[in-house]
Amino acid sequence: MRLAELSERSGVSTTTIKYYLREGLLPAGRLIGATTAEYDEAHVRRLRLIRALIQVGGLPVARAREVLRHIDDDSLGRTIRLGAALWALPQEPATGPGTDPEEDRTLAAAAAEVDRLLVSLGWETARELAPLSPVHRSLVVAVATLMRLGYTWDAEVIAPYGRLMHQVAVRDLDLIDAHPDEAEKVELAVASTILFQPVLRALHRLAQEEESARRYGL
Amino acid sequence: MRLAELSERSGVSTTTIKYYLREGLLPAGRLIGATTAEYDEAHVRRLRLIRALIQVGGLPVARAREVLRHIDDDSLGRTIRLGAALWALPQEPATGPGTDPEEDRTLAAAAAEVDRLLVSLGWETARELAPLSPVHRSLVVAVATLMRLGYTWDAEVIAPYGRLMHQVAVRDLDLIDAHPDEAEKVELAVASTILFQPVLRALHRLAQEEESARRYGL
Repeated sequence: MRLAELSERSGVSTTTIKYYLREGLLPAGRLIGATTAEYDEAHVRRLRLIRALIQVGGLPVARAREVLRHIDDDSLGRTIRLGAALWALPQEPATGPGTDPEEDRTLAAAAAEVDRLLVSLGWETARELAPLSPVHRSLVVAVATLMRLGYTWDAEVIAPYGRLMHQVAVRDLDLIDAHPDEAEKVELAVASTILFQPVLRALHRLAQEEESARRYGL
Repeated sequence: MRLAELSERSGVSTTTIKYYLREGLLPAGRLIGATTAEYDEAHVRRLRLIRALIQVGGLPVARAREVLRHIDDDSLGRTIRLGAALWALPQEPATGPGTDPEEDRTLAAAAAEVDRLLVSLGWETARELAPLSPVHRSLVVAVATLMRLGYTWDAEVIAPYGRLMHQVAVRDLDLIDAHPDEAEKVELAVASTILFQPVLRALHRLAQEEESARRYGL
């Protein structure tokens, strides 16, 4: 298809498509004349992902390019490729290792609690990846925030949440596995992380409303 | 306790405590002299909640005051009180009913899909509250975003996620119910919505890493 049709199909203006081509987010089409290129379904799909990253995920263009580069890098194993793409996504606001020694103590205590939790869940790989993973880091920061505010953290209370979220993740990966194309699998995983997060969060709050009404009435 | 001890106990500076008192976020202490007031455990707890709302949740002071007013309003039933407090929290970025007729059609289609989903989940109260609830609205907007980007929405695929999130909500409310004090229950619900969201999200992503590594190796 030509540029005009690609724009029609993807809902992205030709000006924006040209911008994504220049910025290297969208691979060039196949040249069929001096100024004419031909695009295919892979371009439509890639534009959809770019919109998810930039318009929904709020990623800057440079960050989106980084995520796409990981997705396309088939020299990596799938978990690492998926991980690298997901790790490039924005994480929960994280405070770095600070200059405040009390803050550092809280982070160390939180890291120990998270490690205990992962042991009790049997998430051995997550433990192994811990020093590398920004996801692990954002869990530690979230736990440290609870502790700093004086809320009690009880691994016994949290572990069942971990098991439920594992069931959610199994379902995520089943859906991704059901997808026939290998390259698209990683694409789908990244898109679903960005696009599905608000759905999951809204479902959680709606379920709280529903359950609250069942227990206590309106 | 005096102001200095309240500051010590809560980790909030006396200047900030005075500001919260002036702004009506924190109830006044019991006057025991012309310029001296006595504070108690309820003040410590309330300061913790204010920090959760403002520092972690990022709420402006006026919005935090509104949330606290709902929490304190015991003329309301618990679900409504909890709902009113939670509804005042920031929701997912939501686009209002637009001037774009195509956008309005997508939102209407998304609302119909959400309704079908709620029927299949048996969430009757959530359906009843739909016209009022910003949570319901943010689910509709999230679904509309998926549709607009050309991702398929399949209620059959989503329903099991809804059931898992209901299990999460049951656990949330069990924890809240285990708390002895009625006023604190609503406080705890609001604090946990704000503070626990990053924990749950990080657990979800960690579970994805773990499950991915189990299936495909690193």
